Amino acid sequence: MLLSKYFLPVLKEEPADAQIASHRLMLRSGMIRQQSTGIYSWLPLGLKVLKNIENIVRFNMDKIGSLEILMPCIQPASLWIESGRFDNYGKEMLKFQDRHDNTLLFGPTNEDMITDIFRKNIQSYKDLPKNLYHIQWKFRDEIRPRFGVMRGREFLMKDAYSFDIDQCSAIKTYNKMYLAYMQTFRDMGMSVIPVIADNGPIGGNLSHEFHILADNGESTIFYDKKFLSLTDEESLDISKLQSLYSVAEEKHDNANCPLSEHDLASHKSIEVGHIFYIGTQYSETMNALVNDSNGKLILVEMSSYGIGISRLVASIIEANHDDKGIIWPKNIAPFMVSILNLNILDRKCNELAQNIYDKLINHKIEVLYDDTAERAGSKFATHDLIGLPYQIIIGSKKAGNNIIELKNRKTGIIEELNIDEALNKLLL
Amino acid sequence: MLLSKYFLPVLKEEPADAQIASHRLMLRSGMIRQQSTGIYSWLPLGLKVLKNIENIVRFNMDKIGSLEILMPCIQPASLWIESGRFDNYGKEMLKFQDRHDNTLLFGPTNEDMITDIFRKNIQSYKDLPKNLYHIQWKFRDEIRPRFGVMRGREFLMKDAYSFDIDQCSAIKTYNKMYLAYMQTFRDMGMSVIPVIADNGPIGGNLSHEFHILADNGESTIFYDKKFLSLTDEESLDISKLQSLYSVAEEKHDNANCPLSEHDLASHKSIEVGHIFYIGTQYSETMNALVNDSNGKLILVEMSSYGIGISRLVASIIEANHDDKGIIWPKNIAPFMVSILNLNILDRKCNELAQNIYDKLINHKIEVLYDDTAERAGSKFATHDLIGLPYQIIIGSKKAGNNIIELKNRKTGIIEELNIDEALNKLLL
Repeated sequence: MLLSKYFLPVLKEEPADAQIASHRLMLRSGMIRQQSTGIYSWLPLGLKVLKNIENIVRFNMDKIGSLEILMPCIQPASLWIESGRFDNYGKEMLKFQDRHDNTLLFGPTNEDMITDIFRKNIQSYKDLPKNLYHIQWKFRDEIRPRFGVMRGREFLMKDAYSFDIDQCSAIKTYNKMYLAYMQTFRDMGMSVIPVIADNGPIGGNLSHEFHILADNGESTIFYDKKFLSLTDEESLDISKLQSLYSVAEEKHDNANCPLSEHDLASHKSIEVGHIFYIGTQYSETMNALVNDSNGKLILVEMSSYGIGISRLVASIIEANHDDKGIIWPKNIAPFMVSILNLNILDRKCNELAQNIYDKLINHKIEVLYDDTAERAGSKFATHDLIGLPYQIIIGSKKAGNNIIELKNRKTGIIEELNIDEALNKLLL
Repeated sequence: MLLSKYFLPVLKEEPADAQIASHRLMLRSGMIRQQSTGIYSWLPLGLKVLKNIENIVRFNMDKIGSLEILMPCIQPASLWIESGRFDNYGKEMLKFQDRHDNTLLFGPTNEDMITDIFRKNIQSYKDLPKNLYHIQWKFRDEIRPRFGVMRGREFLMKDAYSFDIDQCSAIKTYNKMYLAYMQTFRDMGMSVIPVIADNGPIGGNLSHEFHILADNGESTIFYDKKFLSLTDEESLDISKLQSLYSVAEEKHDNANCPLSEHDLASHKSIEVGHIFYIGTQYSETMNALVNDSNGKLILVEMSSYGIGISRLVASIIEANHDDKGIIWPKNIAPFMVSILNLNILDRKCNELAQNIYDKLINHKIEVLYDDTAERAGSKFATHDLIGLPYQIIIGSKKAGNNIIELKNRKTGIIEELNIDEALNKLLL
């Protein structure tokens, strides 16, 4: 992508109304723009990140056999009245009437609707277990939306719903999803801590939240310090994980904590995922029954599983930035590398830049080529701000000797290389 | 994908409330389920088709340099009041108040919002032309939603918006998009007829609609019969195309038609795309100004371009079905091939089915393997109904000789082949 053809409205000034780093950086790097309180447009750079995260989530859901569907944004109130939780979200649920005075709502979650889909289409134990997910925009009319897409009103969530024949099978599915969540966040380059949490308005009596540690987090979690030194293998080992103490603040009680002060840690954090073992709450109120192998009608066991996809964009920035800007983990970076042509009037600079640009495209490495007339200082600032993992810097002096600079955004290390050497480094 | 693990709730009975073929077939094949009048959930098979269409649209937009963004579903009324068209959609626009009594709406289209994004982020002729698109769920509160997703209330639309420095450049962009639309529909295996149309509530004085001929269409178009015999080359040649008479019904006037009765045709049709040259309507009311090369502030020239993605799913079925079910064009088929194992108790059938299933997956051919215990007749009916381009039919008798049947869903032609021969046919 040529920057001169792109739409990257970076801001040189700090936005006045943004309180936390991720919000400031997303505005400054031209990833998002606010359209109304807590409602954002995603500009090209932001949308690429959002989609990268979405695709990592999708990949991991597909891998464990969850099937993708898509439920609508708008839901009829009747389903929520039937499930008995029409009033549970209070004013956070956006309700309205259509032209025929039917009450509708912009869905904050989909347990009620998925239960309706299940009961109308699945009747036999032979079709269980079943696991369905969708990735759709939700709305919660927060009283005080803040921190950009971290706590917005319209937000993108992946929510999955599982259906099992009995509690034993349901818990097995729950644990499979728990591990899929650990893997999903790892694939984004993030380490998360799973904590025991409250079920809240979703229902059920067992749930885990997945938290990223961050000084600006709105949550606080308490956990065994061993979580910070897990091996790769241990961090995907469910008994290991569930044997370590880790709870959301509302579940922590110092008096009854099994850990010594020395082993216990607490930290501000951001919740990026939440899984709920629900049981039969919805199948009871909404009559979701299946025939078991003896031909007896029984209530189906349910769980639900959410990942906040738009919130993750901000959360990952909270955990990956410095005073110059964002530092994207490779797997979710909007492009892998920037090319900074420092002198577009120099024939040799243009030749080298075009040469490596073409080669990167041929190797399917996503590249943003800054071919604008901006001065060097401004280009350095812009590309540190948008935080692609690598920068290829091409200036007149070294270009004369066919040398470019390859900068690692995270470490700041700069290497002087020829084009083929740089390409080989990026292909590793 | 194994059918036993999939979620494909086919209906053996005709749904009572579906009046047209596509609606009946989408319900029967388990592609969609209604959640409220004109509001649907997309089940796995339907969602795959929706995404295939979305990706063809995205590919063609990206190819001509349109940049993908994502605007929210919910818009503030203030933008529509400012642009002067808050009341233009009447009751079709779904409006409501949030908890702080701000008036919001579920966007039916995005000219107002994109103009707001433009004016706040682009100030110079150097950044023009600019072309932005998004693919997002829209809402129109139709008084009488009908025909399934053909005329639903919540629908998926790709809408693009272009910004140019002057009318000459704007018309050039308009024509580029016109051709990109022709290519997009061709890539879906559809032939469309572009017709001159009214601009309606979008504004401007030049627009074209793109229609698929279909007996169940709600529109009627008048066109030169030559449209039906264009060569591949001619159907992407803009002067050729725009020199032929073709108009939407409201634009046709028999008295002033330049064609003889012999050359004129008219047919029921479905509108699947609409492009509008708008001019400066929004830039005037909303102050979207850029500096030209002389430093003078001028109004930016706009156009907008829509493709009804969810509606296309139904439209393509209207044009591609028989009395047994859907016949998917290859490029948008949810899977390329079904495997019908007619006897899952037969070791040889299972061996052949598994063998070709594995080979297809290795060759990245999307395959749905019917490994259920249903009887043969039921499997034939199901797979004709869901309409994948090919069926591999494996029965005990021929399997004993390592022979399977490869059926072309469209032609009905069945060939007896061994596995490698079948695979080679599918790889062509």
